[in-house]
Amino acid sequence: MSVTRAAGFSAAGVTAGLKPSGKPDLALVVNTGPDHVAAAVFTTNRVKAAPVLWSQQAVADGRLQAVVLNSGGANACTGPAGFADTHHTAEHVADALAGLGLEVGAGDVAVCSTGLIGTRLPMDLITAGVTAAAGALDEDGGADAARAIMTTDTVPKTAAYADEGWSVGGMAKGAGMLAPGLATMLVVLTTDAVLDAEAAGTYLRKSCSTTFERVDSDGCMSTNDTVVLMSSGASGVRPDARDFQAALDETCHDLALQLLRDAEGSAHDIAITVEHAATEADALEVARAVARSNLFKCAVFGGDPNWGRVLAAIGTTGADFEPDRIDVAFNGVEVCRDGAIGEDRSQVDLSTRDVRVDVNLRNGRAKATVWTNDLTYDYVKENAEYST
Amino acid sequence: MSVTRAAGFSAAGVTAGLKPSGKPDLALVVNTGPDHVAAAVFTTNRVKAAPVLWSQQAVADGRLQAVVLNSGGANACTGPAGFADTHHTAEHVADALAGLGLEVGAGDVAVCSTGLIGTRLPMDLITAGVTAAAGALDEDGGADAARAIMTTDTVPKTAAYADEGWSVGGMAKGAGMLAPGLATMLVVLTTDAVLDAEAAGTYLRKSCSTTFERVDSDGCMSTNDTVVLMSSGASGVRPDARDFQAALDETCHDLALQLLRDAEGSAHDIAITVEHAATEADALEVARAVARSNLFKCAVFGGDPNWGRVLAAIGTTGADFEPDRIDVAFNGVEVCRDGAIGEDRSQVDLSTRDVRVDVNLRNGRAKATVWTNDLTYDYVKENAEYST
Repeated sequence: MSVTRAAGFSAAGVTAGLKPSGKPDLALVVNTGPDHVAAAVFTTNRVKAAPVLWSQQAVADGRLQAVVLNSGGANACTGPAGFADTHHTAEHVADALAGLGLEVGAGDVAVCSTGLIGTRLPMDLITAGVTAAAGALDEDGGADAARAIMTTDTVPKTAAYADEGWSVGGMAKGAGMLAPGLATMLVVLTTDAVLDAEAAGTYLRKSCSTTFERVDSDGCMSTNDTVVLMSSGASGVRPDARDFQAALDETCHDLALQLLRDAEGSAHDIAITVEHAATEADALEVARAVARSNLFKCAVFGGDPNWGRVLAAIGTTGADFEPDRIDVAFNGVEVCRDGAIGEDRSQVDLSTRDVRVDVNLRNGRAKATVWTNDLTYDYVKENAEYST
Repeated sequence: MSVTRAAGFSAAGVTAGLKPSGKPDLALVVNTGPDHVAAAVFTTNRVKAAPVLWSQQAVADGRLQAVVLNSGGANACTGPAGFADTHHTAEHVADALAGLGLEVGAGDVAVCSTGLIGTRLPMDLITAGVTAAAGALDEDGGADAARAIMTTDTVPKTAAYADEGWSVGGMAKGAGMLAPGLATMLVVLTTDAVLDAEAAGTYLRKSCSTTFERVDSDGCMSTNDTVVLMSSGASGVRPDARDFQAALDETCHDLALQLLRDAEGSAHDIAITVEHAATEADALEVARAVARSNLFKCAVFGGDPNWGRVLAAIGTTGADFEPDRIDVAFNGVEVCRDGAIGEDRSQVDLSTRDVRVDVNLRNGRAKATVWTNDLTYDYVKENAEYST
């Protein structure tokens, strides 16, 4: 499982001392080749953390040899000094890998950070941690790496997919600030399939657009989100494009739902599906508006199939629909029909963790699903007490 | 105070039995003239409640003689039957007023409803309540009317403004679903100043745009929001346009902040001011984005001046700014300077109920303020347990 499922990768997760808890907080993933193809997707937030600015440059040539990730500090809003810290981290990774006989340029090292915004990283701990991680690199190190990138996550998130002769692996972290245009999340995907860089970017953007970008836990977009895909080509197999896309989609979907299931303080996982919309963009806008309604999310927490709040949210969108043609079902019970009262809401059972909300706009053929959580006491508690 | 502060108005608030609590739940405000000039602003939500659809038609000719308001049921998403209920309510008001010797057409009666979405109103209780309210009409009935429109409000909201020879009065209700393009709120404003209908509309839209439309408690836009302004002209005074605008602005501002201070479960009232923006629209977009960030709102609840979450919210906007020129102050302490670390956050005291967040984009001369609340356990509790 995890990033070392694919051949041609080694990884490590160590305790650098960034987290007061003493838990692992620094991960290193190295692509040992023969290829070093890479693509990445970053937050669309215009306030980008130093590691995002750095990694955008590093991956611009379609090539990466390593990714270093730390929890315990986001290195966001830290100015030029923070950018210099990221640069220094990448150089130290290159030096440490040189000590292992791997020729790596700092410009081929992506850097990801997560944790509190607006504080500098303790660079002495980072560099010592990088040295330790390089020493601990292992072809089975994926699980350790996945643990080292956790922040408020309660479980590590890993996924893998195997086809004939080639495979895809991945790890993710993220439990808050989950929102579109990426959640607060760091994801590293690896494959031993043979890809060229342009195709890798196309595959990755397509997979992200229907998975990570449709998770919307709390509507808050982070400054640090990064999804990296690296290909070692170690399998020697160049898969059919559709097969590879399906494998990557499945891996990303798996990780995205793991992120959602572990979202801060949530008691319900909610899949909002909008169907029979005029366009996919309309379906997505409507689903997103419902996923962003605090009133709707509180109602689900309270076990109330409050379709009125769903309609109130739909009404704020610019999507093409007629209010008196909308049907809404909670867990299969159509409590709203023709934009008005449908089945008795007491028939709905919301005691399950998984909740399905189906909105039928009866206005076309397009469809989209957005995944979100309920809004709970524990969400407020975690985010009132934990600084990000 | 309240809607009967201005001459030419009578009002009543009675218990129709719509609320299980037995508290007053039906209000009637009558303009006894000599003028019957009116203007109104309604929710921009495309899912509009039956009373909103009705009242839009009623006020289209710039004339209203009465407004009837009920709590205990929103009559939203109730289909054609719900619209017929509203129509019937207006007709019954006209009949009841005819019994008092007042000649009123149903088409000059605005109807406002608030409460649970998606249930029909008990029309027998509504009509009996209207009859009782007509019998209780009083030139000092404004306070009773203000109490009868409360839902989860803990206090009635009234305001008044007096100038030389003329005055403005108002009442409001709203404690949840407070969001731009109006909050879940019903507001009735009255004046005895002489206005023509076109000017009344212009004054009202301008006052709303900088007061009610800048209150954003929970980002949720309602299906029922209505602000009605009626002029009786009973003072015989036609005020200077600037004087009247200022009076209406002040009355609306007063009511808007009362709505915010009573917002469901809030522990802090937060004024987010964005200054030195390129345009007022930019300032407003940035302030609104911060006001919508659940993470920011939880941090204020927790007493944490988390400027990183403010920057993360700003970064999601399309406003014209440079991330490394933004300054952010909490209660006057500039904790973020040049988009990075400023004063020590431990210097900020967030134990006060009022919290000021000042964002300086250092990019122009425009400015805007949006008012919001923190996100608390009690907000979740009220909205998990109370159906709207």
